[in-house]
Amino acid sequence: MKIGIIGLGLMGGSLGIALKSCDSARQIIGFDHNAGHCTQALELELVEQIAQSLDEIKSCDVIFLSIPVGGIIAVMQDMKDIPPNCTIIDMGSTKEKIVSSIPQEIRKNFVASHPMTGTEKFGPTAAIKDLYEDQVVVLCNLEESGSHQQKTASTLYREIGMNLVFMGAKEHDRHAAFISHMPHALSYALANTVMMQEDPKSITALAGGGFRDMSRIAKSSPHMWEDIFRQNKRNLLEALNHFNTELKRCQEMVEHEEWDELNQWMQDANKLHDIL
Amino acid sequence: MKIGIIGLGLMGGSLGIALKSCDSARQIIGFDHNAGHCTQALELELVEQIAQSLDEIKSCDVIFLSIPVGGIIAVMQDMKDIPPNCTIIDMGSTKEKIVSSIPQEIRKNFVASHPMTGTEKFGPTAAIKDLYEDQVVVLCNLEESGSHQQKTASTLYREIGMNLVFMGAKEHDRHAAFISHMPHALSYALANTVMMQEDPKSITALAGGGFRDMSRIAKSSPHMWEDIFRQNKRNLLEALNHFNTELKRCQEMVEHEEWDELNQWMQDANKLHDIL
Repeated sequence: MKIGIIGLGLMGGSLGIALKSCDSARQIIGFDHNAGHCTQALELELVEQIAQSLDEIKSCDVIFLSIPVGGIIAVMQDMKDIPPNCTIIDMGSTKEKIVSSIPQEIRKNFVASHPMTGTEKFGPTAAIKDLYEDQVVVLCNLEESGSHQQKTASTLYREIGMNLVFMGAKEHDRHAAFISHMPHALSYALANTVMMQEDPKSITALAGGGFRDMSRIAKSSPHMWEDIFRQNKRNLLEALNHFNTELKRCQEMVEHEEWDELNQWMQDANKLHDIL
Repeated sequence: MKIGIIGLGLMGGSLGIALKSCDSARQIIGFDHNAGHCTQALELELVEQIAQSLDEIKSCDVIFLSIPVGGIIAVMQDMKDIPPNCTIIDMGSTKEKIVSSIPQEIRKNFVASHPMTGTEKFGPTAAIKDLYEDQVVVLCNLEESGSHQQKTASTLYREIGMNLVFMGAKEHDRHAAFISHMPHALSYALANTVMMQEDPKSITALAGGGFRDMSRIAKSSPHMWEDIFRQNKRNLLEALNHFNTELKRCQEMVEHEEWDELNQWMQDANKLHDIL
């Protein structure tokens, strides 16, 4: 298969590396509207060649879209003339708005996916070999994709070592809001709070593993996350409301010195142990 | 030197291991009111022997207190009859209430410290060899300790590989509230929110590195953290108020679709990159 990757950042670049050792991938072509990214991707050997236009990418058997969610929606409008057997797989972090925006005439060509992996780094230099290995990819509304496309996407994701999970787009977006998008909002807020109140010297001196872990994803790409917050606005706000209720409970227990209740609340949180 | 360690959990146990390879430590004795912990500590060779009473520990040249903050305050009341050259070093996560509670007659024997390290695990089985290596220890109000005690504490902490930072207890507690205690409250609240709203299967399937990192410290000991929240109540509540303001800004920007401002806010958070 000739595979095209649109977007050569952390996700697309790491995908290029992962696909290299797959039996199904005969040729890997990249495309990115950032010329600097294209040069870096070639230098780092993330892809074998760079397409000069979107039309060139359309000749691929499979096209991965590893660009921000808004870009996925936009680029799909220009894909109406792809060949019938072409498979387009998006890797966006929200799914409902994307799925509902796909032009009807190429809906069967499209597979909605969300690989649940990443790091806080971005751009082609952030690409790493094992980003996808042994991680989960969620495939959404798969019954709306053609059977050839279903098979192609499943095969490729399995070949790069991913575990497949199937879910409706609506359900995915609610889960993702709680388990991924809200934690990003908290991390950004934590980083800004601490930088506003603390001098850099104290932060460096005193930051233990807890703060480092909690603030790591505050280094994530604003370009990407602005877009995710926009696409999943309602679910994100709902998740944050639930979080606020929970944090307010904590503040009230501390304020009113309800230490036994606070201890129990912490014990409840400890139960995450049994899950993760 | 004969060294006593009161409290044989993660911190005390790891200290026992670290001290083993120090030139200054001739003998390492442990003490813990939990008999099971004593047995485990011996089996795991965290300490060489177990003291049968607090009085036995008092014959040590140096005594580390690696117990919850409330316990430190309580046990110091029973230490008034230690020999003049004895050094007692506490490792509690808050400092102001501890320092102000030390009996005046043994104030010079006491060194207030806070090693800025740890993991979410607890108990003797959580003890690890390199917990202290290359981490920061904050020494508070050191001028109130005797010169012999200042030197002893500094030497031992340097020998186990720690970097010394000096600070007033009041200042320490405010910094710690922002950089350590507030993040713990957020992590507990995040874990409880997600477990309340999501089923365990979805959490396991969808949790990426971000959620795993942000919820890790929600597995920390309620016994220890209830105590820290109690001792540092005012600073913690102040830090949480600042966090709430910041998170509310985020929610309002999302609600009112102020995407440029949101992007800028995320870029501000990204600046943590330059610090950590």
